[in-house]
Amino acid sequence: MSMKLPSRSENFSDWYNQVVLKAELADYAPVRGCMVVRPYGWTLWENIQAALDRRFKETGHVNAAFPLLIPISFLEKEKDHVKGFSPELAVVTIGGGEKLEEPLIVRPTSETVIGSMYSKWIKSYRDLPVLINQWGNVVRWEMRTKLFLRTLEFYWQEGHTAHATSDEAQEETLKMLDVYTDFAVNEAAVPVVPGRKSEREKFAGAVDSYTIEAMMGDTRALQSATSHFLGQNFARAFDIQFLDWNNQMQYVWTTSWGLSTRFIGAIIMTHGDDQGLVLPPRLAPIQVVIIPIYRNDDERAVVMPVVDMVREAISDYRIHIDDRQEVTPGFKFNDWEMRGVPLRIEIGPKDVAKETLTLSRRDILGKTGKKQIPQKGLLSEVDKILIDIQSSLLDKAKQFREVNTHDPGDFAEFIEVVKNGWAFSWWCGDPECEARIKEETTATTRCIPQDQPTGNGRCIYCGNNATERVIFARAY
Amino acid sequence: MSMKLPSRSENFSDWYNQVVLKAELADYAPVRGCMVVRPYGWTLWENIQAALDRRFKETGHVNAAFPLLIPISFLEKEKDHVKGFSPELAVVTIGGGEKLEEPLIVRPTSETVIGSMYSKWIKSYRDLPVLINQWGNVVRWEMRTKLFLRTLEFYWQEGHTAHATSDEAQEETLKMLDVYTDFAVNEAAVPVVPGRKSEREKFAGAVDSYTIEAMMGDTRALQSATSHFLGQNFARAFDIQFLDWNNQMQYVWTTSWGLSTRFIGAIIMTHGDDQGLVLPPRLAPIQVVIIPIYRNDDERAVVMPVVDMVREAISDYRIHIDDRQEVTPGFKFNDWEMRGVPLRIEIGPKDVAKETLTLSRRDILGKTGKKQIPQKGLLSEVDKILIDIQSSLLDKAKQFREVNTHDPGDFAEFIEVVKNGWAFSWWCGDPECEARIKEETTATTRCIPQDQPTGNGRCIYCGNNATERVIFARAY
Repeated sequence: MSMKLPSRSENFSDWYNQVVLKAELADYAPVRGCMVVRPYGWTLWENIQAALDRRFKETGHVNAAFPLLIPISFLEKEKDHVKGFSPELAVVTIGGGEKLEEPLIVRPTSETVIGSMYSKWIKSYRDLPVLINQWGNVVRWEMRTKLFLRTLEFYWQEGHTAHATSDEAQEETLKMLDVYTDFAVNEAAVPVVPGRKSEREKFAGAVDSYTIEAMMGDTRALQSATSHFLGQNFARAFDIQFLDWNNQMQYVWTTSWGLSTRFIGAIIMTHGDDQGLVLPPRLAPIQVVIIPIYRNDDERAVVMPVVDMVREAISDYRIHIDDRQEVTPGFKFNDWEMRGVPLRIEIGPKDVAKETLTLSRRDILGKTGKKQIPQKGLLSEVDKILIDIQSSLLDKAKQFREVNTHDPGDFAEFIEVVKNGWAFSWWCGDPECEARIKEETTATTRCIPQDQPTGNGRCIYCGNNATERVIFARAY
Repeated sequence: MSMKLPSRSENFSDWYNQVVLKAELADYAPVRGCMVVRPYGWTLWENIQAALDRRFKETGHVNAAFPLLIPISFLEKEKDHVKGFSPELAVVTIGGGEKLEEPLIVRPTSETVIGSMYSKWIKSYRDLPVLINQWGNVVRWEMRTKLFLRTLEFYWQEGHTAHATSDEAQEETLKMLDVYTDFAVNEAAVPVVPGRKSEREKFAGAVDSYTIEAMMGDTRALQSATSHFLGQNFARAFDIQFLDWNNQMQYVWTTSWGLSTRFIGAIIMTHGDDQGLVLPPRLAPIQVVIIPIYRNDDERAVVMPVVDMVREAISDYRIHIDDRQEVTPGFKFNDWEMRGVPLRIEIGPKDVAKETLTLSRRDILGKTGKKQIPQKGLLSEVDKILIDIQSSLLDKAKQFREVNTHDPGDFAEFIEVVKNGWAFSWWCGDPECEARIKEETTATTRCIPQDQPTGNGRCIYCGNNATERVIFARAY
C-alpha cells in the first residue's frame, strides 16, 4: 500500500477510507460490513470512553451490562420501534445445535431488554430515578457500509434512564445532550450544533429526539450523538410502573442516549488533511512522538540519553519514541503525520551540542509549524503548544462551518448552496415540505438548533409562515 | 425477597445464588441462561478490568476489537478447535431479512477471526511480536447455567499474541499466567495454584494449557483464568507466516489467555460468609460506607456536618454515605454487610460530642471487629484497617485451602478426601487413570502445579511410577 493519499478535494470518500487504513485505525473484517478496530483506533476509542464516562459518572450515572441476545417478540411490543429496526436485524435461529423455539435477535439497541428488567426492578418512587449506562457492541444489518461511519457491528454507549415525571425525563434528555456537546467541543475540538430532530428523522419509538450535528471536511453533516425523550412508550410496552407518593400506580418516563465509534469518523473528517489524520491532543493515543536523529552508532550513543531525558521531562504526556533503525527519519515524519500525532520532537547530535530541540506541529505543516527551542523550559513549551493546537483545531473547524453555512434567499438558491454546504433556513414544519426538499436536493433536516433567532419567517420551500429555522444538509 | 440467606453449610449453591441476587450483583435475563450484570456487579468488574488492564499494558500489550460474528467455516479450519466448540454455538442464519449464504457464529472465543487478521498484518519478523488483548463478550450455548460461573453470554478479556519463536511464545504463556496469579493474590485476595492442564482438560486447539485454580468455600475447585500455548496450530490453519531474519517464510507461534466475569464467582465463593458478600478492599466498588445515626432532624443537623468532614478526610477511598431516611440503621447494617463493603463507619450525636467514630470490619462481625476511635487520626486508621482486611482475607483463604488439601495414602482414602477437599497426589500421566478417577469420584485433574516436590512417587490410581503430583478435585 502506497503512503500517498488521494487529496481531500479530489476524492473525499477515498481519502477517508485510506486514512483509516493507513493510520491503522481500523481494517475490514472477513464478514462483509464488519470492522476490526486496530490498537491505534481502539486507544483513541478508550480515550473517548474515559472522557465520556467521567462525565456520565459526574452526572450520577452508573454502568451495567444487559444481554446481547433479545427475544424477537420483545421488539414487537413497541410498534414504531419494531418498524424502525426489523429490516436491520441479525437473527440467531440455532443454539447448541438445536433450532430455537423463539429466534433471538442480536441487539440493535437495548430499550426493550432493559425495559423488561426495569419493570422487574422498579416498584416505588424511591427506586427512581434509575440512571444506567452500558458500554457495548450492537449489530445493525446495514447495506452500504463504511469503516466507523456505518458498520454491521459497532461499539457505543447507550444510556437508559427512568424517571417519575415527564419533566425530569425531559431534563435528563437535554442534560445528556449538553454532556455530548461539551465532550465534542472540549475534548474532540469538533464544534457541533445541538438541536431537535424532526418527526421524520427521530428515533423509532421516541417522543422527541435530539442530536449534535457536525460539519465534515466535505461540508456534509454527521449526526454525532443522539439523546431521546421516550415518554411513556417503552414504559407501557414493558409495563414499567411504580407506586407514586400518593400510592397510585404510574408508568415511568424514560430516556435513552448514545454515542458510538462513529464519532471517530467525525474526528477524522473534521480535522484530517491531505497528509492524513490530525488528532486533538486531549484524545490522541500518542500526544508527542520523539524521533532521535543519527547516522551511526556513535551519534546514536550521544542522542539517546537526551531522548530519555526529554521523555522524563514531559512524562505526564502520552509519548512514543520512534527508534526504528530500518526506516529513515523522513519516513517516520510521514508515518506519524499520517497518524495525526499532534506534536513531534526531533533530537539530533547538533541539538545535543547546542542543548536545543526541534518541535513540529501536526496542525501546521512545514516551516511555520516548526521551531527550535532550548531544552530547558521544554515542558512549559509543550504544555502551551498542545493547548494551542487543541483550540486552533476547534477554531478552524468552527470557521469552516461558518463559511459553509448559508442563508439562501429562495429555494433556487437553496438548491445551489446545499450542493456544497449547509442551509440554515426557515421551515414551516410540514413533513411534506421536508420530503420534497429531500427528493429534490438529497438534503435532509439535520436538526432544529436550540439557538433560534427571534421572530418568524417564511418556509424556504412553500413560503408559508415558519417559526423555526432548521439546518438542511446532505448527511452521512 | 427475604433478607435472610440460607447458611453456606446447609446449601452452598442456594447461598451463592441468593447472595448474587440480594447483593444486586446480577440478575436473570429474559433469555434462558443469560445474565444482567447490575451496576454493583459491573463496578466490581470495572475494578477487576482496571487492575488487569494496567498489568497488561505494563507488560507491553495493547487493546483492540475484533468482530462478534465469525463465518462458520473459520471454526472448521482447526480440527480440535471445532470439535471443542461446535456443540456450544449460537448461529446467525438471517441478516437484514435474508437467509445468509454462509451462517455466522456469535464468537465463543476469537482465535479464528484474530488469526485471519494476523495473517493479513504480519509480513516480517519486524512485525513481531504482536501483543493484543480484547475486552468483550462471547457466547457459549451452555446447558446448565449459574450466574457468573456459567452463562450463555459472558464478559472477559482474551489476549492473542504472535511470536517469531516457540520459546518466546511459551515465555509469554507463562508470563500471563504469572500476571493472573499476581492479580488473583494481590488484588482479589484469592490464593490460586498456577499449573498445567492435563491433555484431557486443555483448551481445544492448544498445545499446552495453563490455569490458576482456586478453592471455593465448599472446597470445590474453580478454574479462574487460563493461558494457552497454541504452538503453530492456528498459524497453520490461518496461514500466518512471516519472513524471518534469513529471508525464510515461517509460521508464527501463538498464545491466547483469558479471564472472565466467572472470576466474580471466585471472589464471592472464596470470601463470602453467612451474612453475604465479603469483598477485598482493593476491588470493592464501595470501600467504606458511612452511616449517620440520628433519631430526629435536630440530631441529623448535628451529625451530617461531621459525616461530610469524615468523607473529606478519607476522600481517596471509594465512599458511600447511606442517608436513607425510610429504613433503620439496623437495616442498613445488614444491607451493606450483604453487599460486602469492607468497612462501615457509624457516626451518631454522641460521637459528635466526644469527637469519636465507630468502625466495623466486614470480615470480623460482632464486637471483635468493632472499635470506637477518635475522629483525629481517622485516615491512618482506615489505611491500616483496609490493608489488614485485604491480607486477612488472603490468609484465611490460604489456610482454608491448606486445611482442605490432602495427601491420601491410597485410592480408598483418595475417594474419601475428594468428597470434601482437594487431593494432591502422584499421577502417572495416563489419561486412562485420569478417566477412571473421574468416573469413580467425579474429581478431575485440576492442574499439575508449577511447584512440584522433588523425586518420584506412585500413581494414586494404578501404582505405576509417577513423576508429577496433581491436584484432583470436584470442580465448578
